[in-house]
Amino acid sequence: MKEYTLSAEPTHSLWDRSLQPRLRIDPGDVVQVECADASGGQVKPGMTTAEYIRIDRKRIHALTGPIWIEGAEPGDVLQVDVLATLHSGWGWTSVVEGLGFLKERFRETYLFHWQLEGESTSSLAPAIVPVRPFLGVIGVARAGDGAFRTREPGSFGGNLDVRELCAGSTLYLPVYNRGALFSCGDGHAAQGDGEVCINGIECPLDATLRFRLHKHQPLAGPLVEASETAAPDSVADAWVVVETGTDLAATARAATGRMVDLLTSRWGFSEIHAYVLCSVALKLRLSQVVNEPVHTVSAALSKQILPEREMFPIR
Amino acid sequence: MKEYTLSAEPTHSLWDRSLQPRLRIDPGDVVQVECADASGGQVKPGMTTAEYIRIDRKRIHALTGPIWIEGAEPGDVLQVDVLATLHSGWGWTSVVEGLGFLKERFRETYLFHWQLEGESTSSLAPAIVPVRPFLGVIGVARAGDGAFRTREPGSFGGNLDVRELCAGSTLYLPVYNRGALFSCGDGHAAQGDGEVCINGIECPLDATLRFRLHKHQPLAGPLVEASETAAPDSVADAWVVVETGTDLAATARAATGRMVDLLTSRWGFSEIHAYVLCSVALKLRLSQVVNEPVHTVSAALSKQILPEREMFPIR
Repeated sequence: MKEYTLSAEPTHSLWDRSLQPRLRIDPGDVVQVECADASGGQVKPGMTTAEYIRIDRKRIHALTGPIWIEGAEPGDVLQVDVLATLHSGWGWTSVVEGLGFLKERFRETYLFHWQLEGESTSSLAPAIVPVRPFLGVIGVARAGDGAFRTREPGSFGGNLDVRELCAGSTLYLPVYNRGALFSCGDGHAAQGDGEVCINGIECPLDATLRFRLHKHQPLAGPLVEASETAAPDSVADAWVVVETGTDLAATARAATGRMVDLLTSRWGFSEIHAYVLCSVALKLRLSQVVNEPVHTVSAALSKQILPEREMFPIR
Repeated sequence: MKEYTLSAEPTHSLWDRSLQPRLRIDPGDVVQVECADASGGQVKPGMTTAEYIRIDRKRIHALTGPIWIEGAEPGDVLQVDVLATLHSGWGWTSVVEGLGFLKERFRETYLFHWQLEGESTSSLAPAIVPVRPFLGVIGVARAGDGAFRTREPGSFGGNLDVRELCAGSTLYLPVYNRGALFSCGDGHAAQGDGEVCINGIECPLDATLRFRLHKHQPLAGPLVEASETAAPDSVADAWVVVETGTDLAATARAATGRMVDLLTSRWGFSEIHAYVLCSVALKLRLSQVVNEPVHTVSAALSKQILPEREMFPIR
């Protein structure tokens, strides 16, 4: 097992499988990935709203990567263990004209700065928000040639905005290209379900990630093994299926269907019993509702409900 | 303060403000409300699927009530404190042809029986589901004359299926008629977000409820003050806004907007700060997605994020 550090610069802001890898690692290796904030360092402490309006939004999301994982091929599963995440004491949240879940009500651009003190905020009194930093964008290169904007997440991961991906959690992703070509960024010190105003607490973030590879394993889309130490207002200690789509009800339906599949394939429930179990114990959450035109729904089952299972055989 | 017991029979299965109250109480009184299961006692332990298909579905949901609260008038808020809930050791979950979130995949009617041992299930090994019983249907008579089926929830409460309404929680409802005319039923020993297969763990339930009245208070729809002792897979210790509508995204948007309103009116945040706070700390959950044509979305903020507030002045 080797350990690496990958600096934030130069960032990239498109998913493109033709990008040259900045680092090549073996399965089992650990990388401290230094990530700029989503703007690529354009937003700085003390910046005014007037200044914020003029940033180059095409640099969002400024990602660190790609990382090539030796031996990874289409049809494999990449396991990413989030070992640690570290913020730097400051973050920002903006409202952007024309974006956001309540864009008809909040029409003007606005920039807010957060002070972060360890595990909570101290700048929007009387509110105190628990801080458990995670990567909003985390994924592998998409199938298909060309360059894709990062706003839309998908089965490859990407702009998932799943707040359960804090330190201690694990993400499983399908591999679509040789080497997997992993990138990440868009650090969030905290984020609500839905990320309703368009941002979480955006921040530069150092994430320590361990990569593992599971050869020839079927996986329809992102699967999260949520940490026991998630924020008090997150889903902790759970299996979380993540689905993305344009219709919210259809996306929630797909997530529910994938959880039924997981219960049958991994725990041996009959299909009908898996469905019944989901009806009495599933958590269905709107992880993001602002990355138009797609929404992301998380379907979670507490690990306390189920016996422990190795989700994929460890290579 | 007086204490009453109201027996399950005779049940009623429609919301109708012309129904004669079965009990008249004063604000502050406590009622042990005995509720049949949603079927009104038609489903019994050991019943087969073949027998279940022949039950009279028009009796669903068999409710106990109405209870007249003296002094209640349109424009008031009824506070319902759930002091205790007691199941009887047995429950059922069905899949019903033509209903449910995955109705295209699960087309046949099926009946499952649960054994409940205190705070968990023991009949769908290896799964163990935590049990925190709550009333799936809880509400006041609707505005307007006529009889309404109970499937659709609304601003009056009704078939909310909000799993956070377990013992220790409080529900606030707008009053639409003199006396409020409260009814409840549809006991669930447990239920997942979404109630995806169409049922939770349906069970007879005795609920001990305390009623309070807040005169002339604006309230757009159900508001839940969730208990600290909610099930490990529920939202605990939180303020929960409950919204119902036909379009899932619009319903989630309305719930988010109501939380912004609550933060500004009760905690004094500016509107933009309330929006920012929701973006970094709100929980957005699909409470039910099967009571067609309407969905119910819950938007929750942990009490740990906010200083304590009396939501309404106590009369």
